[in-house]
Amino acid sequence: MHILIIGAAGMIGRKLTARLLAEGAVAGQAISRLTLADVVAPESPAEAGFPVQAVTADLSEAGVAERLIEARPELIYHLAGVVSGEAEENFEKGYRVNLDGTRNLFEAIRLAESDDRYRPRVVFTSSIAVFGAPFPEAIDDEFLQAPLTSYGTQKAMAELLLSDYSRRGFFDGLGIRLPTICIRPGRPNLAASGFFSNILREPLSGKEAVLPVEESVRHWFASPRAAVGFLLHAAGLDLERVGPRRNLSMPGLSATVGEEIEALRRVAGEKIAGLVRREPDPKIARIVEGWPRNFDTRRARDLGFEAETDFEAIVRAHVEDELGGRIGA
Amino acid sequence: MHILIIGAAGMIGRKLTARLLAEGAVAGQAISRLTLADVVAPESPAEAGFPVQAVTADLSEAGVAERLIEARPELIYHLAGVVSGEAEENFEKGYRVNLDGTRNLFEAIRLAESDDRYRPRVVFTSSIAVFGAPFPEAIDDEFLQAPLTSYGTQKAMAELLLSDYSRRGFFDGLGIRLPTICIRPGRPNLAASGFFSNILREPLSGKEAVLPVEESVRHWFASPRAAVGFLLHAAGLDLERVGPRRNLSMPGLSATVGEEIEALRRVAGEKIAGLVRREPDPKIARIVEGWPRNFDTRRARDLGFEAETDFEAIVRAHVEDELGGRIGA
Repeated sequence: MHILIIGAAGMIGRKLTARLLAEGAVAGQAISRLTLADVVAPESPAEAGFPVQAVTADLSEAGVAERLIEARPELIYHLAGVVSGEAEENFEKGYRVNLDGTRNLFEAIRLAESDDRYRPRVVFTSSIAVFGAPFPEAIDDEFLQAPLTSYGTQKAMAELLLSDYSRRGFFDGLGIRLPTICIRPGRPNLAASGFFSNILREPLSGKEAVLPVEESVRHWFASPRAAVGFLLHAAGLDLERVGPRRNLSMPGLSATVGEEIEALRRVAGEKIAGLVRREPDPKIARIVEGWPRNFDTRRARDLGFEAETDFEAIVRAHVEDELGGRIGA
Repeated sequence: MHILIIGAAGMIGRKLTARLLAEGAVAGQAISRLTLADVVAPESPAEAGFPVQAVTADLSEAGVAERLIEARPELIYHLAGVVSGEAEENFEKGYRVNLDGTRNLFEAIRLAESDDRYRPRVVFTSSIAVFGAPFPEAIDDEFLQAPLTSYGTQKAMAELLLSDYSRRGFFDGLGIRLPTICIRPGRPNLAASGFFSNILREPLSGKEAVLPVEESVRHWFASPRAAVGFLLHAAGLDLERVGPRRNLSMPGLSATVGEEIEALRRVAGEKIAGLVRREPDPKIARIVEGWPRNFDTRRARDLGFEAETDFEAIVRAHVEDELGGRIGA
């Protein structure tokens, strides 16, 4: 099977690539070829049991999507996009990349389908940003998409396209709405949601971290490891079972900031947990207030998607996957 | 106030035009100018108390939207679009007209806003086709948009754009989802939904009509008069009260085909009602099975939108507005 990953240089793309290289197979089929595409050149892995090609490509440019599918990859992961803050900052860029780029890809596949019956599986990462407040206690699979950001709007539009193109038989699409990924590896970032990861990742490496909100703030989480698990499971899922509603909120864990810190304390001890410094920031508190707190993801779970069910598991996944088991070093 | 109607040659566009000409004002403001645009030349009314200009214009062509808003109309009705059957038949045309055409209009306004703070009210006619089965008993304002047609997909995408452009302050948008319009004037048409109107309109003019489904089939209706009423009300509505969710399912009447015929009997008598001939068509029955039957439109009603509450009123509206009060002639 030839797999194309668009957005391969991002955090999830790199983890997915590593996992595919390690497993050599997906959905029970051996991988014969892997194409890694991104707007910045993706790293080419040193060793792989099959050909791996890294491509610098911007889907929003004319002709790029056609070129990416020229070799007819059977499985396409579309992870590429401009993030929420940037899409809000730069209106035109957000629509160009997140909407037009996605539509370019879908259109290229549609035209290839009518040329030679090409019909790949397309797995698209959407976002819980397709939902906007006010929310019910837990957002279920029948709750409306009324986003409150341009990013959420672009993702919701892409979801609609994905369902329609799938219904028309142009490809077999599945959209998966990722929870907030926690613990996000790397350096602290300035995204409003950054603190959810910072307050665990930094102390686990022996550094201080700032908590800008109350401990009672509740949000919706899954680990990077769970996110990669969703993507692998999506590759082999029987889409007949999914039906025409092709976009699914992925399972996750609803937890408060207090529960995050408690899990940190249990896994890493009092001293590490003491590295979280309270420094309330009303601006961040206000932004976070409008975010979803909990989901009812029965549908995805019935289809076999799985995530962590307690925060200690999320902390432990980070210690194992990112720190080689060493805390506070 | 300068009003622009895009899609002015359609059934609703013509009725809206007639009503605006008759009233000379909308939302408490005198009309100073009216521009009628459509892909086929709209009829220019013979007499009006203000300048009326008819324009042939296809929004999906480059530069057309810019030209239409050049004189900065304060109120824009966007009623234009390819209908459901055609959008399903011709995939590219549907997206070009219903999605790209709408986006062209919104983009032209956004760029004008940044040039000279132009910020019109935009009233957009969406459709209950944004919803797809399976439905709850009554579809409320928090039910997801999971359309099962390309037309519904395009309308749902346009709704998302409208909310986002409104949230960003580029214009003041309101999307209204019309019920199935009944009794649709004119000649019988071949749309799958045509019979809902045919079985009333034809007998009221003394002609036979074919009923292809069971009398128990339930659907969601409003008269053309009610639809024009929605459009007028939307022009003056305080959008602060609407909030960020800018698309509303309009009030209507949930009724069975049997109730339609019973209303016809009560208004026009046994002989007229006897002109409905049963001729079951399993293909049409199957299509109609997937359609919404009932809505909970509390939100729109709280905002002052009104429709008929019994089918006799719908039949009487047709007799008054289309037949000059004469039945069976």
